[in-house]
Amino acid sequence: MTSRASFRARLRDAVGVHGPLCVGIDPHPGLLAGWGLDPDADGVERFARGVVEALAGHVALLKPQVALFEVLGSAGLRALERTLADARDAGVLTVADAKRGDIGSTMAGYARAWLADDAPLASDALTLSPYLGVGALAPALDLAAATGRGVFVLARTSNPEAAGVQSAQAWVSAPTGRRMREVAQSVVDALAEHNAAHRDGPGDGSAGVVVGLTRGTTGRDHGLDLAGLGGPVLVPGLGAQGGTPADVAGAFGAPDGALGAAGGPVVPVSAREVLTAGPDPGALRAAVGALNGALTG
Amino acid sequence: MTSRASFRARLRDAVGVHGPLCVGIDPHPGLLAGWGLDPDADGVERFARGVVEALAGHVALLKPQVALFEVLGSAGLRALERTLADARDAGVLTVADAKRGDIGSTMAGYARAWLADDAPLASDALTLSPYLGVGALAPALDLAAATGRGVFVLARTSNPEAAGVQSAQAWVSAPTGRRMREVAQSVVDALAEHNAAHRDGPGDGSAGVVVGLTRGTTGRDHGLDLAGLGGPVLVPGLGAQGGTPADVAGAFGAPDGALGAAGGPVVPVSAREVLTAGPDPGALRAAVGALNGALTG
Repeated sequence: MTSRASFRARLRDAVGVHGPLCVGIDPHPGLLAGWGLDPDADGVERFARGVVEALAGHVALLKPQVALFEVLGSAGLRALERTLADARDAGVLTVADAKRGDIGSTMAGYARAWLADDAPLASDALTLSPYLGVGALAPALDLAAATGRGVFVLARTSNPEAAGVQSAQAWVSAPTGRRMREVAQSVVDALAEHNAAHRDGPGDGSAGVVVGLTRGTTGRDHGLDLAGLGGPVLVPGLGAQGGTPADVAGAFGAPDGALGAAGGPVVPVSAREVLTAGPDPGALRAAVGALNGALTG
Repeated sequence: MTSRASFRARLRDAVGVHGPLCVGIDPHPGLLAGWGLDPDADGVERFARGVVEALAGHVALLKPQVALFEVLGSAGLRALERTLADARDAGVLTVADAKRGDIGSTMAGYARAWLADDAPLASDALTLSPYLGVGALAPALDLAAATGRGVFVLARTSNPEAAGVQSAQAWVSAPTGRRMREVAQSVVDALAEHNAAHRDGPGDGSAGVVVGLTRGTTGRDHGLDLAGLGGPVLVPGLGAQGGTPADVAGAFGAPDGALGAAGGPVVPVSAREVLTAGPDPGALRAAVGALNGALTG
């Protein structure tokens, strides 16, 4: 346990200082080559720690893509541990993009792996996948709330294959009786309930959602009612994936990087567009500054 | 690439020799204590490798629960690498229970992490979670099919919180036009299509599903039509979780551990009921033999 402020409060403060951009740490082999690094654990570690060194103090949130460390096995996870330790030491917030999801004591294992104070992979927040139900993720939601950390649960992603699950219609309980609701919306609603039960203290707004930036690529809105969420929104899809800062403003109504419609910071993610500017630290910072300027301009 | 036989064929052969039981390798702190081991990476490694040493040659499939290694960070993954290497050397099949799921190059990273021949964590099969759509899992399905490995995609789990997603109604295309189908069934149907396209060679039946053993605990059937799957079915919930061998026979119609209704082996999973018999290798083998006897008797 800890007395640190809530993840939402810390993220809100960081967004206020630096702007809303979250930078993905995606050590793809192609990006490593562009930095003159080999696609091995040493190259991944230099790349990821280089991003932290260049951007700590200049960006609100860093998002390591866990798959691209895990592909190298334990050596890759060791590189991620060192990267996360650097970020902690430098005071920059991190969200481990791991999309974990399980039940019971197994879910509790994933929660402790990423959200416990003494975990080697301790991060400020963790992404989760709710195919087993948002309720099954409770061990992670509860640990995040207790330790001033956060979770971002997948609600709506922008890939076309997702509709068969996320746009399916589920029965939910409502004050007026059972009614049908889209799966993606029912995820948002369940997290809103969690946040409503943790209004004060380290758990305030600890439950966020992942909502892909769909408007730019498909012309559709995300179609979600985020007004009651009371937590942050992580928005992948900016830059190389086709979304623009104007799309963010259009979809989330937070052109100033402030709380947005969801009541927590709306944090767009870019990886490739920033990372291709490296390895020069000044160029990385300039790319971040340009994107934050476009997002808040 | 490899010329090994398909995962389904190898699993079918192993089930024919040993019986259908899959043993979970779940290094929970409580089980470690029962074996006289500490809940650290060394204890986890001794536990997991002890299970492999005792049961290789006596069980069809071993299922390490990745969360319980990951909770120890890179040191835990190193223990898992050594466990998987022991299993490869001993010729016992493994399924890494990681429930991974993402899109695009990130999903390809997870696929390579667990299903590539030269991966430190290479396993014979991997569990996947389809909240982003079964189509998004294609990099793993394709790599499994190419390398004679398998995947087990979550379809129906037995935890009550899952219904809001897995029992939601999705629009699907059908020869007679669009119709509504349960998400869990649409997952099965998408994998059946994949298997139909890989009838011969190393990809035969490479796409399996995870279907929880619900009957014993809830009185409900899984409610899925598995007849067209053409792949294996992994069935958690035996033993400590409340399901019985009779429930397996009732729900999957495969009392002899043969192909079952799905056209691939139906493989029930037990962890605690076997593992509490350890660390004595003979006692572990006796527990496996008793369960296999009950499943095929």
